[in-house]
Amino acid sequence: MPAITPRTLSGFMELLPAPQQQMERFMQVLRETYSLYGFTPLDTPLIESAEILLAKGGGETEKQIYRFTKGDADLALRFDLTVPLAKYVALHAGELSFPFRRYQIGKVYRGERAQRGRFREFYQADIDIIGDGKLDVSNEAEIPAVIYATFTRLGLERFQIRVNNRKVLNGFYAMQGLSERSGDIMRTVDKLDKIGPEKVRDLLIDDAALTNEQADEIMKFIAIQGSNAEVLAALEGYAGRNELFDMGLEELKTVTKYLAAFGVPETNFAVDLTIARGLDYYTGTVYETFMLDHPEIGSICSGGRYDNLAEYYTDRQLPGVGISIGVTRLFYVLQEQGMLNEGLNTAPAEVLILPMTEDLTAAVQAATFFRGCEIRTQLYTEQKKFKAKMGYADKLGIPFAAFLGEDEAAQNKISLKNMQTGEQQLLSLTDAANVILEDMRVRNNGKLIKS
Amino acid sequence: MPAITPRTLSGFMELLPAPQQQMERFMQVLRETYSLYGFTPLDTPLIESAEILLAKGGGETEKQIYRFTKGDADLALRFDLTVPLAKYVALHAGELSFPFRRYQIGKVYRGERAQRGRFREFYQADIDIIGDGKLDVSNEAEIPAVIYATFTRLGLERFQIRVNNRKVLNGFYAMQGLSERSGDIMRTVDKLDKIGPEKVRDLLIDDAALTNEQADEIMKFIAIQGSNAEVLAALEGYAGRNELFDMGLEELKTVTKYLAAFGVPETNFAVDLTIARGLDYYTGTVYETFMLDHPEIGSICSGGRYDNLAEYYTDRQLPGVGISIGVTRLFYVLQEQGMLNEGLNTAPAEVLILPMTEDLTAAVQAATFFRGCEIRTQLYTEQKKFKAKMGYADKLGIPFAAFLGEDEAAQNKISLKNMQTGEQQLLSLTDAANVILEDMRVRNNGKLIKS
Repeated sequence: MPAITPRTLSGFMELLPAPQQQMERFMQVLRETYSLYGFTPLDTPLIESAEILLAKGGGETEKQIYRFTKGDADLALRFDLTVPLAKYVALHAGELSFPFRRYQIGKVYRGERAQRGRFREFYQADIDIIGDGKLDVSNEAEIPAVIYATFTRLGLERFQIRVNNRKVLNGFYAMQGLSERSGDIMRTVDKLDKIGPEKVRDLLIDDAALTNEQADEIMKFIAIQGSNAEVLAALEGYAGRNELFDMGLEELKTVTKYLAAFGVPETNFAVDLTIARGLDYYTGTVYETFMLDHPEIGSICSGGRYDNLAEYYTDRQLPGVGISIGVTRLFYVLQEQGMLNEGLNTAPAEVLILPMTEDLTAAVQAATFFRGCEIRTQLYTEQKKFKAKMGYADKLGIPFAAFLGEDEAAQNKISLKNMQTGEQQLLSLTDAANVILEDMRVRNNGKLIKS
Repeated sequence: MPAITPRTLSGFMELLPAPQQQMERFMQVLRETYSLYGFTPLDTPLIESAEILLAKGGGETEKQIYRFTKGDADLALRFDLTVPLAKYVALHAGELSFPFRRYQIGKVYRGERAQRGRFREFYQADIDIIGDGKLDVSNEAEIPAVIYATFTRLGLERFQIRVNNRKVLNGFYAMQGLSERSGDIMRTVDKLDKIGPEKVRDLLIDDAALTNEQADEIMKFIAIQGSNAEVLAALEGYAGRNELFDMGLEELKTVTKYLAAFGVPETNFAVDLTIARGLDYYTGTVYETFMLDHPEIGSICSGGRYDNLAEYYTDRQLPGVGISIGVTRLFYVLQEQGMLNEGLNTAPAEVLILPMTEDLTAAVQAATFFRGCEIRTQLYTEQKKFKAKMGYADKLGIPFAAFLGEDEAAQNKISLKNMQTGEQQLLSLTDAANVILEDMRVRNNGKLIKS
């Protein structure tokens, strides 16, 4: 009797082999796309001193963090990739070149209440550009290009990057004499999608204690919609009354100006004055990204501009801009929605070699040849009935089976069976490799997400 | 004043960007090579229930493990990838196809005493083939091919895979009437490289309480050396006296027989009767791999055949064979020994685009064009002096700088400067892309490890 019932902790994603292959593709697209935009990969420890991770403090974080001691050390698991980045840049600033552009894809930990689709261990995939003292606004203009390229390369088509600017918002609130209540207002406005404009207006009056006139001004402001040009034109109507607002409007115009040059179609991008981002540290452009057919999922890629990355660790002023994709949750949603492209090969190999003779030499040579052609190849050498062997290839979805009996070995050939069409050919190893390589090209030509 | 001095925990590797790029290459070679041999990627949680991880118990493991509670849960960080594999296979057995071939590259945690070159958080890169009830010995023959391909693709040339068989050892000890002391004897013989044959003989007599004759028999046995054929021939001299020995000898002959067909040169492989592997659960072929010029480092890739992967979690008999590379430690050693190929590009980009006009449209278009050609491209838009911009490209080792002034923009061209040769050319974007792509081909043609 085994002593222990095997189990995986709830809230921890553990995929079966086929979906894991899809997840690997997801990661590979992220790595490639981020690299293409000049971000360098980084890998930092999952464990940090608790003092480092909790420097900023704050309620939710402290409650959710995995914290423990080892010997005298007070340790914790990272809950995001931003705090470790702040530590890294503060610690290694002298050895880095600024602007410092890094990507990091790694697991983070939050001991949330477990519920369907929520994870306690999940991958984040972040990019950030960190300046030393200054950072030009054109970096903020480049971020939508990275978001667009990432989701397009993944295969997603119907998504929209929504952009706003915190200076525009804060400047606007200042014009209304509401600077001190801007936090409350933004949190209320953030509920717009969920509760609708009327209830937002009620909350602004009841909870945020605005006058009817102030609430109307805000409702009018967030109702500004249309093409990017139209929204910017409407914003011009507020210009000249507040310096911060004017600065934010200039930034928003810069971000919008270069979109076409960055290859981002207008359909995938919108200036949206209702976007605020909850986090206090954003100071300029803010980004959210929505799947047009699944708005209920919320933003799948968010971030923004901040003025001081690492104030808890260094006196150096380190402004930056960054975005984050919650990979595990997004992958879960794509799976749930049936949006992953099943046409892509999720088998462990392209070809399964089945020796039909006791001596395996010819089969091993064939495997070595295929591998030399960069074809993922598995040798099947278990003593099973033929049907069981074919069932193995079938169940795993291996595209080809290659038989090697005495006849084939004598001719230095193999019998290659296409498992999907059932077609079987006697071929030289070179010809067989070409058939498999061509099939790979066609089969894996598609993108991860079905369009 | 910043409140907290930034630091990274000792025993935790945190690389600067250039070496991190090399580490990424290392990982990529592992993923590609393991995939080529028909292993499917797996990713399991870093945290498991402590009960699961400590099912086997055992002193060192229990002392070193990172264990903590969260709410009611008694949790721990995995200390290897084998226990999580055992849990995974036991838990998901009904949904897997056997033989189940998986690779996993992931971090594991051991709270060892910190010392130079020893890590508390480190990557392991494992492959295992798990059978359901049975597993053919030919799988054991394939493992050296994977080891050989992995290190060869990394660029290592002077290494040797050393192979032995536990049945041969245990059978031999049984012949000598020493079955019950075989563990002590193997642990003593394992010290051969460190302390030499005379001291091993002394220990066998003094500590393991062997007679002079028994010690001599063992010393004679482990002194068997020569080509694989010679060692096997010498072993034949012991055949017919013990069933287990004979079975082990057959297995060793099978493993050796297919080496050539698997493409493993005899120079990179040796049957070595002194290899035993400390761990008790190996039951057949065992593997160690040594860098010929750095024997002091010990084995860089080890493993073997075991009869029962998951006995603590299931009644199902799951024999397997696997190997593990300690990636973090090996990377550390390669760095220390100056063995990493510095010719490979470790910059965040292939080309740095430097706009010389206030309007960035042409520069952004050039960046978009290059990225469309799969060229890693960075736009540099900070307001700095020309010299500072060039210094940035230089310090990061970015191979090309591309200038875009009014002249260039008017002609729809760029000035491309090769940072290494200093050569500068006025080129169309297409021609510039071809120059950069050709340089990438040449520059990144080499392998990670210098030969």
